[in-house]
Amino acid sequence: MIDWRSFEELRVNSGMLHRRSELVEQAKGFGRASVRTDLAVEARDLARERLGAEPDGIVSDEEKGDFARAITVRVLTPEAERVTGKRMGTYVTIHCPDIRVSQKEAKEEVAKFLSSKLSQMMAELGIGPEDEVLVAGLGNWNATPDAIGPTVVGKLLVTRHLHRVLPPEKRGGLRSVSAISPGVLGLTGIETAEIIASVVEKTRPRAAIVVDALAARSTTRIGTSVQIGNTGINPGSGVGNRRFGITADSLGIPVIAIGVPTVVDVTTIVMDVLGAISRGEDQNIAELPPERMRDAVVNMIGPDMSQMVVTPKEIDVIVEMMSTVVAGGMNTALHEALTEDEIYEYLH
Amino acid sequence: MIDWRSFEELRVNSGMLHRRSELVEQAKGFGRASVRTDLAVEARDLARERLGAEPDGIVSDEEKGDFARAITVRVLTPEAERVTGKRMGTYVTIHCPDIRVSQKEAKEEVAKFLSSKLSQMMAELGIGPEDEVLVAGLGNWNATPDAIGPTVVGKLLVTRHLHRVLPPEKRGGLRSVSAISPGVLGLTGIETAEIIASVVEKTRPRAAIVVDALAARSTTRIGTSVQIGNTGINPGSGVGNRRFGITADSLGIPVIAIGVPTVVDVTTIVMDVLGAISRGEDQNIAELPPERMRDAVVNMIGPDMSQMVVTPKEIDVIVEMMSTVVAGGMNTALHEALTEDEIYEYLH
Amino acid sequence: MIDWRSFEELRVNSGMLHRRSELVEQAKGFGRASVRTDLAVEARDLARERLGAEPDGIVSDEEKGDFARAITVRVLTPEAERVTGKRMGTYVTIHCPDIRVSQKEAKEEVAKFLSSKLSQMMAELGIGPEDEVLVAGLGNWNATPDAIGPTVVGKLLVTRHLHRVLPPEKRGGLRSVSAISPGVLGLTGIETAEIIASVVEKTRPRAAIVVDALAARSTTRIGTSVQIGNTGINPGSGVGNRRFGITADSLGIPVIAIGVPTVVDVTTIVMDVLGAISRGEDQNIAELPPERMRDAVVNMIGPDMSQMVVTPKEIDVIVEMMSTVVAGGMNTALHEALTEDEIYEYLH
Amino acid sequence: MIDWRSFEELRVNSGMLHRRSELVEQAKGFGRASVRTDLAVEARDLARERLGAEPDGIVSDEEKGDFARAITVRVLTPEAERVTGKRMGTYVTIHCPDIRVSQKEAKEEVAKFLSSKLSQMMAELGIGPEDEVLVAGLGNWNATPDAIGPTVVGKLLVTRHLHRVLPPEKRGGLRSVSAISPGVLGLTGIETAEIIASVVEKTRPRAAIVVDALAARSTTRIGTSVQIGNTGINPGSGVGNRRFGITADSLGIPVIAIGVPTVVDVTTIVMDVLGAISRGEDQNIAELPPERMRDAVVNMIGPDMSQMVVTPKEIDVIVEMMSTVVAGGMNTALHEALTEDEIYEYLH
Repeated sequence: MIDWRSFEELRVNSGMLHRRSELVEQAKGFGRASVRTDLAVEARDLARERLGAEPDGIVSDEEKGDFARAITVRVLTPEAERVTGKRMGTYVTIHCPDIRVSQKEAKEEVAKFLSSKLSQMMAELGIGPEDEVLVAGLGNWNATPDAIGPTVVGKLLVTRHLHRVLPPEKRGGLRSVSAISPGVLGLTGIETAEIIASVVEKTRPRAAIVVDALAARSTTRIGTSVQIGNTGINPGSGVGNRRFGITADSLGIPVIAIGVPTVVDVTTIVMDVLGAISRGEDQNIAELPPERMRDAVVNMIGPDMSQMVVTPKEIDVIVEMMSTVVAGGMNTALHEALTEDEIYEYLH
Repeated sequence: MIDWRSFEELRVNSGMLHRRSELVEQAKGFGRASVRTDLAVEARDLARERLGAEPDGIVSDEEKGDFARAITVRVLTPEAERVTGKRMGTYVTIHCPDIRVSQKEAKEEVAKFLSSKLSQMMAELGIGPEDEVLVAGLGNWNATPDAIGPTVVGKLLVTRHLHRVLPPEKRGGLRSVSAISPGVLGLTGIETAEIIASVVEKTRPRAAIVVDALAARSTTRIGTSVQIGNTGINPGSGVGNRRFGITADSLGIPVIAIGVPTVVDVTTIVMDVLGAISRGEDQNIAELPPERMRDAVVNMIGPDMSQMVVTPKEIDVIVEMMSTVVAGGMNTALHEALTEDEIYEYLH
Repeated sequence: MIDWRSFEELRVNSGMLHRRSELVEQAKGFGRASVRTDLAVEARDLARERLGAEPDGIVSDEEKGDFARAITVRVLTPEAERVTGKRMGTYVTIHCPDIRVSQKEAKEEVAKFLSSKLSQMMAELGIGPEDEVLVAGLGNWNATPDAIGPTVVGKLLVTRHLHRVLPPEKRGGLRSVSAISPGVLGLTGIETAEIIASVVEKTRPRAAIVVDALAARSTTRIGTSVQIGNTGINPGSGVGNRRFGITADSLGIPVIAIGVPTVVDVTTIVMDVLGAISRGEDQNIAELPPERMRDAVVNMIGPDMSQMVVTPKEIDVIVEMMSTVVAGGMNTALHEALTEDEIYEYLH
Repeated sequence: MIDWRSFEELRVNSGMLHRRSELVEQAKGFGRASVRTDLAVEARDLARERLGAEPDGIVSDEEKGDFARAITVRVLTPEAERVTGKRMGTYVTIHCPDIRVSQKEAKEEVAKFLSSKLSQMMAELGIGPEDEVLVAGLGNWNATPDAIGPTVVGKLLVTRHLHRVLPPEKRGGLRSVSAISPGVLGLTGIETAEIIASVVEKTRPRAAIVVDALAARSTTRIGTSVQIGNTGINPGSGVGNRRFGITADSLGIPVIAIGVPTVVDVTTIVMDVLGAISRGEDQNIAELPPERMRDAVVNMIGPDMSQMVVTPKEIDVIVEMMSTVVAGGMNTALHEALTEDEIYEYLH
């Protein structure tokens, strides 16, 4: 006799247990304001807040455009890795707070920033202009806040199949690019990381780029930032809390991760409010003992709550717009033949 | 010269301003625990908490099944309307906490409860078994948490066009049913309420049923409850905060509203935590002065936050499942020819 | 007892009976090569073939671009209407045979042609730059070949709801535009024409533009042509064979129809082959008696076949591309503030 | 300088060249009535017609239900393989001509036939009730007639990820099933066969089941038949004309193919009409010399026409219904715990 209840509970809860214990740990660290973020720049800012100073082993750099900024955060030492929770490597965040209410030029600037930073990162990783690249769009296409990866993949200029039948002189600056949307564990029964690894083994690209929806610390990041990193995808990141890493180690080739924040964890929001109150910030509220706060939060983090995200009502508009911007930037970085002016060329 | 900024800001913010001022009012009422819910049963419970007693003018009733309960809340007086924020009328909430981890029988029980309560409400409103009914699926089909209305509409047995060409003896217990998904203001430029009113005027159905995604007070309600009410849709309700009512007054025919909670407002979550702390509940935490809490919350409610919702990561699975349950229950209530055993018949 | 069979047959066949008798009539006219097309330019060419000369009452005009041509066909007399089967009025077809294998400039040229011809037609109909326009995207969004109308609507710059809250000096050249996708009879139970009429009565726009997928005579027209006409939608046109007209007569306001061919009727293909054989064209095949051909065709046109369409396998790519081109052209024609260079502006 | 034209032509035409030369060959064979079909039962019937007798090496068998029939065709010899164009093996076609206009029982009978035939085929291939199975849904989810594979996959009870964390006594008759929708070459740049092979190598299932949309010879097969075969997918089959085989040879494990006809090739329709005329069937039309017919057909088969399919207008309804039937049958065959009465259980 089939035990539907235990089966269904497992279905519902898979991925949840892992995350929950992590959250309880996180909440215990409350007072040290340990909230979750997939963005290195936010992790750096949290470390700064906690330490009251720039953490050692982190070098930052900022470039300003007319509408957007590109902030580069380098995590250089194991200590910096521990403090930020971000693996040693380089993370560029392009941030354009007003992108939704701005004219076309703002979107183009973000796409150009992304294109130039991605080109630079590929060059640093030794990926030449003719090297084949596999793009993987992570996430669940059925759930809007998790759909940015597959949506970007649907807008890419995919060429691998054409490359194979064209003589080199006809390729004219178009790189060989393949692209998959592997789905999520609940849909396939197979870990995303496994599917990507198997396709890499079979098709032997020179590098992989993974595109994913991210969880930010602050709602102001949703739909306004793009992060490019050279360390791949690490366990626990993403809207769906990817369970296994997708990295140079696991794939055997360089992995660049491009992410767009679309959600904030509910627990982050709650801890943020409590933090504001306990620190007496903004409101000059007297401090409440941190342990009481912590208990309140731990109590709130039921298995339900750890599976909840905060997302804007108009998330569909944000995913559509940002996937166009990201695909535009990726297309021009991947294909030399496309100039900056043609950043949206292929999308027409 | 076009002022894109003001235009785009308007686009982004339309619907937001209205809601924000309401939220600030709500937050000011904090301490009186005024949090938002579209569910009458939650509104009743909040009133109970505040008053420490059953509010006057509210009569409740409960029916138990093997898996689910049906709780009927009748708001009988203007005073009860004021206290609950729900218009005078009848609201039935079918609640099945374990529906996701239960076998098929639980889903069928919810569909049957829905069918029987809907039939009863239609009879009370004088809607006969041959009277034509228009169903409207509210919400934005592009954003998963707001898509339940259009998804239900896609699963209904629509017959109005066939009815017109069939002789009565061939109709065999199938009612004339039409169904529209009017979209949302941002997609059409027209108020949902206006589109429905115009179709009602043209096609002259005897009654309307509107299906919508709801905001609950508690995350435990998401995907586990269905509410049926005889007062239609009131301004401010739903995931997208409908701006105009869809009621017997505005349409000139009876309006039944069926809703499934898919989100909780972020502000509700935050106020809930603060409430728990301030009341010292669960945690024996000393009270913080309510006015300090209130200031903290008002401060947090920026225009961003009031457009944010809390929703489960697996919202796509919930919307798919609950829309099947709701459509199954509606099909059997609407069409006499379908028996309870055929509750999912048409869906195959 | 419900008679499911007659009900279901009706569901399946609704719309079919009408069309079938029409097809049999058409086939009887075979030898006079009466094949179906929604394109006036093809209807003119068929009339030319039959008559061996330019039919009376038809005036044509052609404009050439670098990639595309715009052919204007004016049907001026009742006799010309009878001969072509197209209502008296003006039809512009923009044709770009290589649009799929051409660079971006070709797509932009088609969008600009469309924009300029649409502007001109609106001016001729007395529609001023500030007059409100309702756009209706006809067709079934679930069936790719019939989805072009709703897809175009999803890419329009909809402004009616913003207009109402903006002072005139802030509107800066953006017209008030609303847009609906009314669905198809099988989904709603309501005639598309009825829904549009009811929304027109309620919102009182100055003019309507309906966008629809068309049936062409020749497969070379699929995804390569756009037709703009000032006579609205006539019964029997479109992929789904609209059953009622959507015209100035039925709505009380000017109606412009924009269509993109996505299918050819199966019967057209068959009659085309038979015609080629019977006329001994291309192949120098001896003539077969036309009545034998006719019998063969009439025999083939079962109820099944009359519901079949011919469409390219890559129809999804065609619908996506052409809906972007059409929406780009419409956005610039509708909103003075958008220049020709910004033809795809809003789409980013 | 990038040669967009050659690149785009390649994009549009990839997959087309292969098929075209095949079609010209086929047309040359005209008179021998060589038309394309993916259904073995139709290929047998065509061979019968040509030979005027049952071809050697083919054994057929038929089982009748109340609504449907299951016809088993065994291709036993290399000669039979040559004559039918179907690889040696077993093909079961379940045919229910009235499935769309019939009550629920007809759909259930088809699902039960499928379940029982699939179980039997798995047993014959030595696949035990606990062996892991990978399901692959072939085809393009963006184009309705090619979407049946991915749609079925979305309705399967996927369990592999749960199996790994459940003790055997808790699995209660649920097999380990994984499922992927690999997309099509134009979307990924990678051959579907390559993606499946790589996932098989990585996850090591005991067998694979591929689900695909098929091309039939006759429009009466569309949406009324399901074929189950034990020879996998062969090059040239399917709506998209799969270019590489997916077979026991290429994957190293047994491959069962399940297919639903959703289209007929345009050339098939044309050759059918010509055949009917030339054979003087039905109409007593005098024979036209076959070589003239052939020339006419070869002339018609341009690169455009060979990429065209014939499909019903209501293909969306057919794909939705048949994917439910197929997924229902597969779920009960794959999971012992599901009884025949629960054929649609999981779908609720």
